Amino acid sequence: MNIFEQNESAIRSYCRSFPVVFKQAKGAELILRDGERYIDFLAGAGTLNYGHNNPILKQALIDYIESDGVTHGLDMHTDAKESFLEVFSRVILEPRDMGDCVVQFTGPTGSNSVEAALKLARKVKGRRNIISFTNGFHGVTTGALACTGNQHHRGAAGVTLGDVTRMPFDGYMGDKMNTLAYMDKLLSDPSSGIDHPAAVIVETVQGEGGLNVASADWMRKLERLCRKHDMLLIVDDIQAGCGRTGSFFSFEEMGIKPDMVTLSKSLSGYGLPLAVLVLRKELDQWEPGEHNGTFRGNNHAFITATAAIEAFWSDNRFAEEVQRKAKLVRERLQSIVQRQGPNSLRVKGRGLMIGIECPNGDIAASVCSRSFARNLVIETSGALNQVVKCLCPLTVTDEQITTALDILEGAFAGAMAEQIDTAAS
Amino acid sequence: MNIFEQNESAIRSYCRSFPVVFKQAKGAELILRDGERYIDFLAGAGTLNYGHNNPILKQALIDYIESDGVTHGLDMHTDAKESFLEVFSRVILEPRDMGDCVVQFTGPTGSNSVEAALKLARKVKGRRNIISFTNGFHGVTTGALACTGNQHHRGAAGVTLGDVTRMPFDGYMGDKMNTLAYMDKLLSDPSSGIDHPAAVIVETVQGEGGLNVASADWMRKLERLCRKHDMLLIVDDIQAGCGRTGSFFSFEEMGIKPDMVTLSKSLSGYGLPLAVLVLRKELDQWEPGEHNGTFRGNNHAFITATAAIEAFWSDNRFAEEVQRKAKLVRERLQSIVQRQGPNSLRVKGRGLMIGIECPNGDIAASVCSRSFARNLVIETSGALNQVVKCLCPLTVTDEQITTALDILEGAFAGAMAEQIDTAAS
Amino acid sequence: MNIFEQNESAIRSYCRSFPVVFKQAKGAELILRDGERYIDFLAGAGTLNYGHNNPILKQALIDYIESDGVTHGLDMHTDAKESFLEVFSRVILEPRDMGDCVVQFTGPTGSNSVEAALKLARKVKGRRNIISFTNGFHGVTTGALACTGNQHHRGAAGVTLGDVTRMPFDGYMGDKMNTLAYMDKLLSDPSSGIDHPAAVIVETVQGEGGLNVASADWMRKLERLCRKHDMLLIVDDIQAGCGRTGSFFSFEEMGIKPDMVTLSKSLSGYGLPLAVLVLRKELDQWEPGEHNGTFRGNNHAFITATAAIEAFWSDNRFAEEVQRKAKLVRERLQSIVQRQGPNSLRVKGRGLMIGIECPNGDIAASVCSRSFARNLVIETSGALNQVVKCLCPLTVTDEQITTALDILEGAFAGAMAEQIDTAAS
Amino acid sequence: MNIFEQNESAIRSYCRSFPVVFKQAKGAELILRDGERYIDFLAGAGTLNYGHNNPILKQALIDYIESDGVTHGLDMHTDAKESFLEVFSRVILEPRDMGDCVVQFTGPTGSNSVEAALKLARKVKGRRNIISFTNGFHGVTTGALACTGNQHHRGAAGVTLGDVTRMPFDGYMGDKMNTLAYMDKLLSDPSSGIDHPAAVIVETVQGEGGLNVASADWMRKLERLCRKHDMLLIVDDIQAGCGRTGSFFSFEEMGIKPDMVTLSKSLSGYGLPLAVLVLRKELDQWEPGEHNGTFRGNNHAFITATAAIEAFWSDNRFAEEVQRKAKLVRERLQSIVQRQGPNSLRVKGRGLMIGIECPNGDIAASVCSRSFARNLVIETSGALNQVVKCLCPLTVTDEQITTALDILEGAFAGAMAEQIDTAAS
Repeated sequence: MNIFEQNESAIRSYCRSFPVVFKQAKGAELILRDGERYIDFLAGAGTLNYGHNNPILKQALIDYIESDGVTHGLDMHTDAKESFLEVFSRVILEPRDMGDCVVQFTGPTGSNSVEAALKLARKVKGRRNIISFTNGFHGVTTGALACTGNQHHRGAAGVTLGDVTRMPFDGYMGDKMNTLAYMDKLLSDPSSGIDHPAAVIVETVQGEGGLNVASADWMRKLERLCRKHDMLLIVDDIQAGCGRTGSFFSFEEMGIKPDMVTLSKSLSGYGLPLAVLVLRKELDQWEPGEHNGTFRGNNHAFITATAAIEAFWSDNRFAEEVQRKAKLVRERLQSIVQRQGPNSLRVKGRGLMIGIECPNGDIAASVCSRSFARNLVIETSGALNQVVKCLCPLTVTDEQITTALDILEGAFAGAMAEQIDTAAS
Repeated sequence: MNIFEQNESAIRSYCRSFPVVFKQAKGAELILRDGERYIDFLAGAGTLNYGHNNPILKQALIDYIESDGVTHGLDMHTDAKESFLEVFSRVILEPRDMGDCVVQFTGPTGSNSVEAALKLARKVKGRRNIISFTNGFHGVTTGALACTGNQHHRGAAGVTLGDVTRMPFDGYMGDKMNTLAYMDKLLSDPSSGIDHPAAVIVETVQGEGGLNVASADWMRKLERLCRKHDMLLIVDDIQAGCGRTGSFFSFEEMGIKPDMVTLSKSLSGYGLPLAVLVLRKELDQWEPGEHNGTFRGNNHAFITATAAIEAFWSDNRFAEEVQRKAKLVRERLQSIVQRQGPNSLRVKGRGLMIGIECPNGDIAASVCSRSFARNLVIETSGALNQVVKCLCPLTVTDEQITTALDILEGAFAGAMAEQIDTAAS
Repeated sequence: MNIFEQNESAIRSYCRSFPVVFKQAKGAELILRDGERYIDFLAGAGTLNYGHNNPILKQALIDYIESDGVTHGLDMHTDAKESFLEVFSRVILEPRDMGDCVVQFTGPTGSNSVEAALKLARKVKGRRNIISFTNGFHGVTTGALACTGNQHHRGAAGVTLGDVTRMPFDGYMGDKMNTLAYMDKLLSDPSSGIDHPAAVIVETVQGEGGLNVASADWMRKLERLCRKHDMLLIVDDIQAGCGRTGSFFSFEEMGIKPDMVTLSKSLSGYGLPLAVLVLRKELDQWEPGEHNGTFRGNNHAFITATAAIEAFWSDNRFAEEVQRKAKLVRERLQSIVQRQGPNSLRVKGRGLMIGIECPNGDIAASVCSRSFARNLVIETSGALNQVVKCLCPLTVTDEQITTALDILEGAFAGAMAEQIDTAAS
Repeated sequence: MNIFEQNESAIRSYCRSFPVVFKQAKGAELILRDGERYIDFLAGAGTLNYGHNNPILKQALIDYIESDGVTHGLDMHTDAKESFLEVFSRVILEPRDMGDCVVQFTGPTGSNSVEAALKLARKVKGRRNIISFTNGFHGVTTGALACTGNQHHRGAAGVTLGDVTRMPFDGYMGDKMNTLAYMDKLLSDPSSGIDHPAAVIVETVQGEGGLNVASADWMRKLERLCRKHDMLLIVDDIQAGCGRTGSFFSFEEMGIKPDMVTLSKSLSGYGLPLAVLVLRKELDQWEPGEHNGTFRGNNHAFITATAAIEAFWSDNRFAEEVQRKAKLVRERLQSIVQRQGPNSLRVKGRGLMIGIECPNGDIAASVCSRSFARNLVIETSGALNQVVKCLCPLTVTDEQITTALDILEGAFAGAMAEQIDTAAS
């Protein structure tokens, strides 16, 4: 029994799929103590959009630490926070017509920024109900968990997860149901049993939920529904934001303007804990300290986040590169589907948040373990863990894409063949 | 309007008391851009027990970053986590008769480890109710917030905070009430209206609640009550732990054995976000991934935490130093009380979690702002913000203690005199 | 200001539509102090299926009172209760293949029997969630109210109405949506966000919700869905039961077997408060007295209920009469629709639970007040109070039907004309 | 297996203590089919203050039924309701300085009037929390049940009973604790964790809770606390009201003025289901029909209630008789205690809501079954069913009191002797 089995709680999870000990990491690679290398198509579940230990960010961080920059200062003003606020406003918010937004530094987890958004929405509107969607994932602290769909997590709550109404996401019933027309009917009907919601919380692409994509049209109509029924629109961009779909925010091309946006995961750019809530200034009705937390405002993360924004988002080049690579990956995935299971497999997702849906979770698990055996770290998502999800760093090289997708194709070939064998026997 | 007023949410809080921009920090000092220095008796609200940017921890962190050690690896096995687990078990748990405990890495906030503890207690016992205490503070995410007493935070929930029963803390009614006898009566009476709790969550010293101290005797009786009524005992040691009271855990001298202990704040030792739940192995009934989070297991924090534990807890010397300094500070505080308000002021707290209770919050605020004007950063706590709380780094020098307490005494003299003037006019 | 305005709470409701004082009542007629007579097409909102003060029941009741029969005996055994149980089992349950059911006497309101059903379902299944439907009405005590859709009532709760998931009723989105396919998808999807329900509660015809009718096919599929997902099926037959739809239970012809059935309203047959929960014996896992109440088991109501069952349900004649009259009323209503608003009016409902849906609540209100002016008591239902609902006693005479429907047709003619006038002006 | 065992739910309760079938009842007597007579010291758990089938009320009811008076009229105006309102206002409210109160007819159960009171209090104050007391009983529908202390009933809820804070009743910890000082401290402390309540609900004598008596002084201080903290005072007088303690309302002599009073049980005077909420007019902020129910306003009950109020409350004579009998019963009970267990038994209660507390529930059960064997119907109450509760009709004769108390004394003698035998063996 190793030290993890002996001393760490049984709740540990990803390490069960990848039973090795990683020592180093660089770009799209994870490295064992003996030097063996793995291509990382998990990327901290979307936390490492700029790769592991990106050298620009690394140097900025080391310089800051060397100079005894403030590491921890609660929510006091620091040089590092000032720079982050300045750069985030100038490079990210203003060019995207979000200059009227302010930034709230919540506890450094995505879940914490969701909790903040829900509290503020309820306070501003004076109502308790929140709408979230089938297959949505918004974290596992009790308030956020009420918005999360996954029963594995919900079941662990131990209490009733109330004050949230579930609605069907875009395409939840295929073409057979206009999910927004249904939602409108419920909200318009005074005896539908749906209490007037304060807000709607939505992911444009459901990362944990299985790479379900909301169309731009659906998102625009959802925004209109929010206006019609006086509900705030909260976009949870924790996994899909920071460039993952080909633009900084996942909703940029859609012509919508959310009232609040949650960001975390790749925001620090270096894998350091950081989370913010971006909100329209007129909604900023917080009293000082109403939602607090020891680690809100992680200065190391400010340093790497500022460096990342300057390095990657000062012009369009990075976004265009991501779009180019997304096209490349999509083509390879489509080709895998075509060759390995045109009738049973299907490409899902958007940008570099993309994958292949399998007929069941067993096949997807087999694909992942076969990939890992050939040094590719990749994981599943979806209600039944049936979607093999490619979340490579956005800075992945074309060569790494090729290598990884060759491994993936082999893994699919093996897994699909195995399935046929099983069925035949 | 500066960038903070313009771009940061109105929820910002501590920075309103200390309206400067800090650039550097070292030991017990915070330093402005122009080089002006402040003594820090807030220490990240107890997060910087080993001081700012402790050089031993700093070097270990820089070395790790330089070597491209894994920064972010979800809950996968890393070299850094392995070392932390090994050192934490060997140096902290085993010598304290807690070798039968395992460690759960929760999201890197104290609140998140509280959420995990509550979920697990409810799961293990199959009940929903939790007992928490008057003036307790356990974080502000919805599950933890239900256990927190402060109305300022509770009011922001926007929903009912249920499944928690509030009990009076040790000494809540002074000598007029045996709070545990009351609790026992309620729990023994099948028509008291108190649903059978799964667990009790308690701080041995209520940091945010105003430095209220639970006696060792009360804690032992509380433990017995937990056994009598089949409830788990969760000690929230987030603020009082990691040496603050003179031993690593705040309850070490009490002869009790909690079922779960939450740790965060000073655990990383460097101000980096980290939180764990320490729990008895037989309670470790989690399914893999039931409570998850992107930043559970912050490898930078593992590096500094491991270095801190080795440097400060391998033998008794540090603990003894803390006890010596605590005595020093207590004597100075008692002398301030004696001279400035023997009838109206009073020393509260334990170890280096100690302060002076004022007749009201205005006096305490005046003390803090007068201190800040003379370059001492210090804050209040308590239901009415009436307690001036000394949370200096445990590594503070005797000279810094003297300087800080001289400033504090002057501030008390001024604040008390001002009060008399106001009353007279 | 009369005594009602002066001394009764502003919550009084029906009396606002009918601002007279009734003194006597007989069959389908209500009579004022001065002898003026009204035809009653409201019938206590379905409580007077056998008419006011039915002579057979009246005689039985007077005899019982004269003989000093036990009036109030808590849930002790009485002669009257024994007779009721014997007759209800022999005449109602056994012939309908429900001989394996037992009867629980709950507090004497429909809402109370719903509360009992929900408690028992949650206890038996060990789960908290319950499914109820859009536009459903199940009472207004807090537990039942959570299942009720109407916002007017929900808004008065003052607390969160939790542990209930709302599903779309049969035909809620017209032909555009298979509501049970949607429900099945949600229940089959482990990340839909719908916690596994203990039970489904449903009305076969939604009385307060606007006379929405569930088809037999939909009910059968709903029953299958309950079996598939291990949920109990509770039919709330409080308004639709006791003959209203042409059979004793509203679901008799459907070929389903609910796990629990709530009955109240016309059960006593005389307008006296009585409510029961009929449940399959294997679900009868109550501890003695777990759900109690002072007036459970109203002996006067047992007397009239027993007399009513014997008089009306010993053979098929009464049911056949109801079906014949239902046909008569339906034809007249269809003719009204045809003449007064073939494009804007529509007949809704089943059996003698039938009415006309208007384009809006104003027209429906106008129809009712015009009817009342001509001595017909009739009311609206539906989310927007847009449905004029005919709930005449099932014992109404053909002549009374004719008179009432003549008045109703006149009222429709007037209301529709008025609307055209208003639109034109 | 008799018909009750075969066809009635296992939830039946009182009938298990009294396994006979009652046929008739008159005054303080219950009569079997074979003519055997029992003295009734349970009186419908306080529902039959004027005895069974009181002849004055009986005649009024028969006359009403004979004349085809309206039996069921929803909440429409009827002759019978008008008379009730007039008499209740004139004879009860006005002489007691409650002329500024209005009457709300809720569903005909005490629980339903409690639900109404809670809803209205929450609406008026815009807050969710309610204070109720240890050992309080307020009914078992979900909203009322949250205020009820008994775990046997609470456990059957199946859901979390939230939005209620439990406080210790008068004398809950004996002399060791000033329960109102504790309550005041919690309400005054902004970090006590007690959310600001909308109202306090209290019984002056806890009937089901074990005949615990609140002193007049405690009630007056409680009223002052309500004013100080802006909470409404709701007195639940369902069991203690209608004369049980020697005055119509149980709080008349205390010099307090509740904001709302719930009444039911003996209000109709004949055992017929009726419940009202009496509330100060300025709090009557209901919208029409917000809280409704089919059987609100039971006209038969109006008739008997009106007759009862006129017969018993038009002057002081009845109240004085009750006080005289209460004295008589108390003296006999004290003598039983003195003789049968001066160190282990104790008289509890007020007025004719009085009994003897036994050391445990077994003795109390033995007393009741021994009494029943000698034709006295009497039951227990209290958290452990340890209190033998005398709830005779207020119209009981002196002779019946003597007979019943002779039986009771014999039962105590037997039960106490049996206990000694058991202990000795």
